[in-house]
Amino acid sequence: MNGLSPLDCLRIVLSHPSHPGNIGATARAMKTMGLRRLTLVAPRSFPHDEAVARASGADDLLEGAVVCETLDEALRDAVLVAGVTARRRDLAAPFRWARDGATELVAATAGGTREVALLFGNETAGLSNDELARCHLALTIPANPDYSSLNLAAAVQILCYELRLATTAAAPGAPPQGEFAPATGAEIEGFFAHFERIALANGFLDPANPGRLMPRLRRLFGRARLEHDEVSILRGFLTTVERPKVRKKDEAS
Amino acid sequence: MNGLSPLDCLRIVLSHPSHPGNIGATARAMKTMGLRRLTLVAPRSFPHDEAVARASGADDLLEGAVVCETLDEALRDAVLVAGVTARRRDLAAPFRWARDGATELVAATAGGTREVALLFGNETAGLSNDELARCHLALTIPANPDYSSLNLAAAVQILCYELRLATTAAAPGAPPQGEFAPATGAEIEGFFAHFERIALANGFLDPANPGRLMPRLRRLFGRARLEHDEVSILRGFLTTVERPKVRKKDEAS
Repeated sequence: MNGLSPLDCLRIVLSHPSHPGNIGATARAMKTMGLRRLTLVAPRSFPHDEAVARASGADDLLEGAVVCETLDEALRDAVLVAGVTARRRDLAAPFRWARDGATELVAATAGGTREVALLFGNETAGLSNDELARCHLALTIPANPDYSSLNLAAAVQILCYELRLATTAAAPGAPPQGEFAPATGAEIEGFFAHFERIALANGFLDPANPGRLMPRLRRLFGRARLEHDEVSILRGFLTTVERPKVRKKDEAS
Repeated sequence: MNGLSPLDCLRIVLSHPSHPGNIGATARAMKTMGLRRLTLVAPRSFPHDEAVARASGADDLLEGAVVCETLDEALRDAVLVAGVTARRRDLAAPFRWARDGATELVAATAGGTREVALLFGNETAGLSNDELARCHLALTIPANPDYSSLNLAAAVQILCYELRLATTAAAPGAPPQGEFAPATGAEIEGFFAHFERIALANGFLDPANPGRLMPRLRRLFGRARLEHDEVSILRGFLTTVERPKVRKKDEAS
């Protein structure tokens, strides 16, 4: 390993893109997922102001983009080429769903030492049969069968997202769930006792017929996993129910 | 089941979108993944030609879009609201990665019988703290920490993709989520408004210095996922705080 990650060995190749806006949006989509290498085969208009505008802060990827005349040139050093296509075709390369394909592509970089290419066709025509014939795998994004027409940069976004997740391997892991201290059992019991006292005083809870009020409250607050500060807030509220606090503002008005 | 699928109960809510092009691209992203229900809160420009242009063949979703003045209106009947945010914040709702969150959202539709909302903030500002306070879950798309600025429609695309995959994964008859009916957005807002009124009257909440009281309560009860009956209990309690109920027993004693 020379400091490269698998994402550094994964290039996105756009073949014959028509709209410079899509090139810019592709650069943005790539960069949000940590991919950096964009190759353009015979773009109709590039460089272009609209590409820069849609790239937002990802114009560095546009500046670093490799522009090729032919697909051959774009794929020369790639050990694996996967093409993204909306349709399955008889003569195409082996088919993979995007998620499985992404895992396979990341594995093919051999930890960031081998070149892998992900190829997208023209916005209108998609990949030609000749282009697809250059692919070792055909990847498809699961989509609405009645309307599977993803925007080019949107398709790039999904694939780059899957590549990023495949790279971080066993998913990004469970995030820490907040740094707040949980309430202790005694604090929680103190709250319930306080609530019950007021509910009795106010006549909300009928001591002769308590029903399932307290069990239901326990169920509710049990689900929430009360925190220390939250118990303080709830008890503060109950205290002002017992003894309303007169504020200076209120006195003045 | 009345022929609805989970995807039919999942609405995408864009709060204060600035660019009509993003609204169109959102409609297209949704439709490619089989989602149909788009809600717009106070869009700057809608309807708009650019929205139609970017929607490509998804202009039917634009025609069917619900336009609301307020977020309240947009979320009224939703039993679960998830907000998409790039940053983790201290007081936000429980955090989920997009993939796990999507599974949870699909489950919350209870097989296509309950309304669930996925909320996206403004392109520049993201979700405000007030908007995030309305969410039961905060969803984050794993992204490049040095450049996590996904385009709005690109973020919608990824989430809708995950929702579609979660739907097909849950296909074998997702069981209902427990036997209690969840509270609607309007019921929950009614509770918070009632609580706030009393907290102001009792002097617990200082209108000149509200601090983070209400956001913290929203966070607590958001975690609990309030049920319909629980809101009734809590509001019943608040009502007796305002007007204590005199019980016959008490009178006799």
